[in-house]
Amino acid sequence: MNTTESDFLLSALTTTNQFLDTEAVQAWVKRQNDEVVVNIHHKKLTELTNWHFDENTGDLVHDSGKFFSIVGIDIKTNWGKVSHWQQPIINQPEIGFLGIIVKKFNGILYFLMQAKIEPGNINYVQLSPTLQATKSNYTKVHQGKAPLFLEYFNGTKPANVLIDQLQSEQGARFLRKRNRNIIVEVTEELEVPSNFIWLTLAQIKELLKYDNLVNMDTRTVISCIKFGTYSEEVTEFYHTLSIGKGNTSSFELEMLISALSASKAKHSIDRIISWVTNLKSTFDLEVSKMPLKDVNHWTTDEYSIHHVEGKYFKVIGVEVEIGNREVQRWCQPLVESSQEGLMAFIVKKINGVYHFLVQAKLESGNFDVIEMAPTVQCLTGNYRQREYEPAYLDYVLTAKPEQIRLSSYQSEEGGRFYREQNHNLIIEADDDFREEVPENYIWMTLNQMLSFIQYNNYLNVEARSLISCIRFV
Amino acid sequence: MNTTESDFLLSALTTTNQFLDTEAVQAWVKRQNDEVVVNIHHKKLTELTNWHFDENTGDLVHDSGKFFSIVGIDIKTNWGKVSHWQQPIINQPEIGFLGIIVKKFNGILYFLMQAKIEPGNINYVQLSPTLQATKSNYTKVHQGKAPLFLEYFNGTKPANVLIDQLQSEQGARFLRKRNRNIIVEVTEELEVPSNFIWLTLAQIKELLKYDNLVNMDTRTVISCIKFGTYSEEVTEFYHTLSIGKGNTSSFELEMLISALSASKAKHSIDRIISWVTNLKSTFDLEVSKMPLKDVNHWTTDEYSIHHVEGKYFKVIGVEVEIGNREVQRWCQPLVESSQEGLMAFIVKKINGVYHFLVQAKLESGNFDVIEMAPTVQCLTGNYRQREYEPAYLDYVLTAKPEQIRLSSYQSEEGGRFYREQNHNLIIEADDDFREEVPENYIWMTLNQMLSFIQYNNYLNVEARSLISCIRFV
Repeated sequence: MNTTESDFLLSALTTTNQFLDTEAVQAWVKRQNDEVVVNIHHKKLTELTNWHFDENTGDLVHDSGKFFSIVGIDIKTNWGKVSHWQQPIINQPEIGFLGIIVKKFNGILYFLMQAKIEPGNINYVQLSPTLQATKSNYTKVHQGKAPLFLEYFNGTKPANVLIDQLQSEQGARFLRKRNRNIIVEVTEELEVPSNFIWLTLAQIKELLKYDNLVNMDTRTVISCIKFGTYSEEVTEFYHTLSIGKGNTSSFELEMLISALSASKAKHSIDRIISWVTNLKSTFDLEVSKMPLKDVNHWTTDEYSIHHVEGKYFKVIGVEVEIGNREVQRWCQPLVESSQEGLMAFIVKKINGVYHFLVQAKLESGNFDVIEMAPTVQCLTGNYRQREYEPAYLDYVLTAKPEQIRLSSYQSEEGGRFYREQNHNLIIEADDDFREEVPENYIWMTLNQMLSFIQYNNYLNVEARSLISCIRFV
Repeated sequence: MNTTESDFLLSALTTTNQFLDTEAVQAWVKRQNDEVVVNIHHKKLTELTNWHFDENTGDLVHDSGKFFSIVGIDIKTNWGKVSHWQQPIINQPEIGFLGIIVKKFNGILYFLMQAKIEPGNINYVQLSPTLQATKSNYTKVHQGKAPLFLEYFNGTKPANVLIDQLQSEQGARFLRKRNRNIIVEVTEELEVPSNFIWLTLAQIKELLKYDNLVNMDTRTVISCIKFGTYSEEVTEFYHTLSIGKGNTSSFELEMLISALSASKAKHSIDRIISWVTNLKSTFDLEVSKMPLKDVNHWTTDEYSIHHVEGKYFKVIGVEVEIGNREVQRWCQPLVESSQEGLMAFIVKKINGVYHFLVQAKLESGNFDVIEMAPTVQCLTGNYRQREYEPAYLDYVLTAKPEQIRLSSYQSEEGGRFYREQNHNLIIEADDDFREEVPENYIWMTLNQMLSFIQYNNYLNVEARSLISCIRFV
């Protein structure tokens, strides 16, 4: 085992925390929430301070020209049943940091998590990465202070980079947006403000059992962690750690085996690449920017940018007040879904190892036509969602309780989305479930999905969110 | 060793051919060349049959709207010394097939190569993949016959897909162009026309010692082949095969070791991904299409589209006549470079294994901002080439003869480029060569480069061309 991978694995198997046990973390988050004053008021889009509609295009833009904007796109594709449509989308071409500092205490890696308020969050405070900064933030477009701990991520202070990958965000909502997902290890003493805590990876995964407690950005960063490949050593290690603590359940051990299984996979990596290549060669995605004011079937009034039939999502305006002593105030647009979404992986044991049924999915904002998605993903706001019935949706909706291996509501990024939560599910296939699947689906072990994640733009954020929730103890 | 990888390795080590030895292949190509009548006439762009300038944009397009077109692009970037420029570029959004059929004879994989004429080739006939077809070709836009052997690549006839990847083409000349590089193994008897031959991989690599004999498309397809990782078994295997045949030279064995070396690499794959991530996060590339007629510093007359100072390249028109009995005639534009290019890898032994000095390079047509390129790449037509002095160019140009490990002229794709050849070099660093390199360079083993190739858009076509030339015997 590579040292970094085994360090991560050990942290993923360590549920006890020398600082704070997992129940106490929930209480701590609640306290953080109680202590802070948050006011979110709806506001007319035409009255958002520092924002305006561009005269020529009708795009909703920040006065600085930075941050993000709401623009129009025109989409042509031979994928699915709708071959041509137009829609508003969030344009944020800058690459930001989603960074976590880790540090060893008594040989175990701890993750430095932040209790962070986002205006769109249902419950305001969620557990966030150490650093969450857009380029506009960290280059100080808004003239504020530099974000805390930035110096460990931009090379100013020494840190050992363990993971550093570009990962996509929601392809139905963002135009080719990517963030830099980064984990750095420090050895020096850190001064940690009161809204930060150290958690093991197992604790973060345990907290993901609960609704809307761990934010999107944390989920995408930890989904990039690989744990090596299977060896006898690992099983022994596992048993030493978890048996006797009474928390070994067979499904979690099976998930660990899937996370470490390269060799028992149904398909080779080459075969999976060929599957993606074939789909990318067959299906076109032609996206061009267009003036928001000309987008078909969408209209802008002073309160929102919305679909004429109220479908998909709308863009609204809010005024935000956050803080206790020092109050921060700003205005911004947020995207509000017209309904909750659902994302589910169906899993099945094949060759003795759990495989995940992965969907190839084309979304308008995708960087490279197709990304690997959960078996079922009907994110509200996916433009064509109601135009057809997603495969396997019925199977997921009618799963028996004993088939539901994971179920929680998780929030989308509260800096852009207004109170949006999606149902995350892992469903175990029953014995009758067919191993043969339609051409845009393929079976992969968790290890294979983790291998693809590291090479950018292979797994979409919805798949990564689900992966982050998978516990090994 | 994975079976496919060891099959490829065995073919890469087999220089004897039961059908045709390597010298005879050269004679055979010459005969193919002598037998065919080829006439290429320059022709006014305004008089190219089936091509016209678009009235509104001035773009040069095919009447069908298919094949390719010459369009304008506007480029903004914070990379390099020129932050904003405009240029013509080839737009060919379709993904074509570059496919090779392989088949085992007496346990050795043979590659089915085609002697193919391309209008832009210096010497007309070059060794090409079994199938070379644009989507317009194989969907019969030109009403012709379906390309030979297409049925083994599109799933109509049974074949085992060994490699199937999307790979980029010249980022300075093509706008985000990619082709499907595919190798399929067949077991049935094939009827092979007289302009096809079966060659081992070692033979193809041997023929790459010679100038302009193996075409670009062959080079990119064979560059996608991986050979597994190092084991004792491999060295034994190697010695069994090649010692006694008198063709073991230490540099070739060293290259094989580099091709198989994952563990002795200076940097981990994670570290290399972090290096790419950092550069992609730091540097922007904003490319938008624009009317060709409005492109600054470029002008169109009836004979060519050219830079006002004669720099970089020009687009010319040709009329092509090919054939002996049945003559094919067509007109098309070709891109003509204003000078030859040079692409070179500097290699150096680090930790006992040869490492390649890889450059991160931003080119206007790149799919994802940056691709990994040879240490030195001054492709003529790279827009900014003369605006600055490429790093390491002097080192390569002043290398002593004993440092030159590989040197040949190789052609760019003769279907788009007019008599363009580039000098391909591998230069061994001397002892004084510094292991510390500028931030956009990194050392990688051949094995690491081959790992990245399979994940699309990591290594550019110039790097892949050089890699294809590396012999192991």
